[in-house]
Amino acid sequence: MTATQFLVALIAIFVAAKLFGEIAERLGQPAVLGELIGGAIIGVSGLRLVDPHDTTIHLLAELGVILLLFLIGLDTDLKRLIAVGGISTAVACVGVALPLLGGLAIGRLLGLTSIVSLFLGAAMTATSVGITARVLSDLGHLRDAESQVILGAAVVDDIIGVVLLSVVTSLAIGKDLSYFAMAKIVVVAFGFVIAALVAGAWLAPWMMRGLKRLQVARGVLFASIVVALGLAYVAERVGSAMIIGSFAAGLVLTRCGGGKEVEREVRDVAQFFIPIFFVSVGAAIDFKSITPHVLMIGLLLAIAGTIGKVAAGFVAWKPGLKKLVIGVGMIPRGEVGLIFAQVGLSSRLLDAGLYSSVALMVIITTFIAPVLLRAMLPPRSAEEYHGTADYVMDAPLDDDAGSRTD
Amino acid sequence: MTATQFLVALIAIFVAAKLFGEIAERLGQPAVLGELIGGAIIGVSGLRLVDPHDTTIHLLAELGVILLLFLIGLDTDLKRLIAVGGISTAVACVGVALPLLGGLAIGRLLGLTSIVSLFLGAAMTATSVGITARVLSDLGHLRDAESQVILGAAVVDDIIGVVLLSVVTSLAIGKDLSYFAMAKIVVVAFGFVIAALVAGAWLAPWMMRGLKRLQVARGVLFASIVVALGLAYVAERVGSAMIIGSFAAGLVLTRCGGGKEVEREVRDVAQFFIPIFFVSVGAAIDFKSITPHVLMIGLLLAIAGTIGKVAAGFVAWKPGLKKLVIGVGMIPRGEVGLIFAQVGLSSRLLDAGLYSSVALMVIITTFIAPVLLRAMLPPRSAEEYHGTADYVMDAPLDDDAGSRTD
Repeated sequence: MTATQFLVALIAIFVAAKLFGEIAERLGQPAVLGELIGGAIIGVSGLRLVDPHDTTIHLLAELGVILLLFLIGLDTDLKRLIAVGGISTAVACVGVALPLLGGLAIGRLLGLTSIVSLFLGAAMTATSVGITARVLSDLGHLRDAESQVILGAAVVDDIIGVVLLSVVTSLAIGKDLSYFAMAKIVVVAFGFVIAALVAGAWLAPWMMRGLKRLQVARGVLFASIVVALGLAYVAERVGSAMIIGSFAAGLVLTRCGGGKEVEREVRDVAQFFIPIFFVSVGAAIDFKSITPHVLMIGLLLAIAGTIGKVAAGFVAWKPGLKKLVIGVGMIPRGEVGLIFAQVGLSSRLLDAGLYSSVALMVIITTFIAPVLLRAMLPPRSAEEYHGTADYVMDAPLDDDAGSRTD
Repeated sequence: MTATQFLVALIAIFVAAKLFGEIAERLGQPAVLGELIGGAIIGVSGLRLVDPHDTTIHLLAELGVILLLFLIGLDTDLKRLIAVGGISTAVACVGVALPLLGGLAIGRLLGLTSIVSLFLGAAMTATSVGITARVLSDLGHLRDAESQVILGAAVVDDIIGVVLLSVVTSLAIGKDLSYFAMAKIVVVAFGFVIAALVAGAWLAPWMMRGLKRLQVARGVLFASIVVALGLAYVAERVGSAMIIGSFAAGLVLTRCGGGKEVEREVRDVAQFFIPIFFVSVGAAIDFKSITPHVLMIGLLLAIAGTIGKVAAGFVAWKPGLKKLVIGVGMIPRGEVGLIFAQVGLSSRLLDAGLYSSVALMVIITTFIAPVLLRAMLPPRSAEEYHGTADYVMDAPLDDDAGSRTD
């Protein structure tokens, strides 16, 4: 790839991401939908301006996912999670189990191998906290009891999803498939997060004090990025996934009270790389692969995923909670589902057709959730939500441009 | 390059840049010196953690230079330039001509070809406005009459330097060498900047209004980057250099009143890529190439460059101006000189030895200017300079972290 080709690819990615993101937002849809569709248009089957398999583009997209999970980790409030506690965890677990089983069943019915079926199921587990939080916030219902349960459950979902991802990634690269090996991966992933939290509790305050003494520009930005990339590297080395590492880095820094500052510093850089990931995912969709069969699988996955998440909402036992709202709020997939699709494709576990099916499932669930929520909840004046929604969902420009006073 | 190797390279680059940048700042030296030395330590002759010739690292470094010149363009105030006008222009022209001739003479005396000699001379022309502005600001002398002349001259220097660079780049890739062809390159480069300014005066206000209506996150950030990369692409296509394009993009956006906002939005992203460039430049230094001969050439170039710039200061005819201060303020090379070195190396016009000589010249001139200025000017309370120094020179963290109120 020459510098000229690189420029063309970057221009195409940013124009596609922001143009179609803008159109999606104007239609009341999440910007990430627009980025996927924009990616498909400039990708391998469309204008061929971006080759998602090019080494440099692929590495930048990887950096985008690593930074995305870092931001999700930064925005994960373990305390809030413990507060909504039981109900959210129950909703999350059922909301992971049912779609996982649904995907597994669909895969087996279609005659796919058990690994591929597991992959399909796993891709359906994680709720996109960003999309849901953004829609609830737009409707002015973010502080409802149901919303708190949804957000708590989505966080648990994310953690389970990331662990599942490290399991299927190991499967994808052809590692040992025994139950013992899988259990080991789960233990390593959870162990890594716990170890990072424990070590972080000791090291981070000392590190934050050191950072405050730095004279060099952007010390916090670079130190945080180095911590995120460093833990991603260590996680990969101990047999887990890179995104487990950057997610843990985010958790650690937030726990130590540096979350807000780090988030503010890292956001712009992350915003630069994250669209490269989503556009790449869209760009890898091969239109030729979208046969009626692929469409049908995508639809089946979307239906099974939707039923599974809605059913999970009814696990919320506390009286007075609108169980249907909770279930519908859990429908959108998004980021983590797409990461699954991409890992599956690049490891050749998913062929172009199944990749398109998973992408379709993500697009359908992401599309219907806002529509259903709008129909169920009366709009109030919008609340501010300065959380994951800000970057995952591309909040409107004014959100923080207005809060800077240079 | 795998994702793991990419992580290691990025971590090494950021740690080297910020660790040695911090050390340099604490020693009263510009951070860029630290980044170069840090790069040399982790580079091809040192720890071998970063291979500056790897495609992805090279492309990211290129993006860094393009964004650096975009920022320099954003920070170039044509009006201020016209105000200090004549004196600055005269100082700049003499300050370009003498080092150019000095480099050319040294090259010819050493028996080098005329192209290589021209290259050496050209690499010695551009004053680093960032380094000088930072030192003057640290000493509290930024608003002195001498400083205004220096900054004005440095801007003219930058423009001449960038044009010279597009000339020598064309020479480097083996294009036609006639005077007519060289004149054409100069005309294209100047013509491009003028055409961009004229077209920009019409288009930019319309574009800025459109941007304000965007709902999507970071509309200004991405639109500015697309404009910068787009003009870089066009400039390359019409036979000029990419950095001429991004420099022109910066000039245009600043002229239309969008400079401050664009700068604020783009700064973090640019800050991420610019150190990759400087560390790469350092990483490409081959210690084995640093023979006594190479050291001697580097020293000769530094002496010729210093004498040329100091002599240029005496062109400032207005009575009362401290001519020696002006001359000394023009000594540091920096960014543009390093871009020359890098173009020379990658086009194989400069061998590893001459590359090291140019890098050495940049390091020496960048090192002595702050020392001499400190000796000549009594320190006052530091002034704030929110200009190029902010990113080129890595101003202290608090500079703008404090000015945000989230």
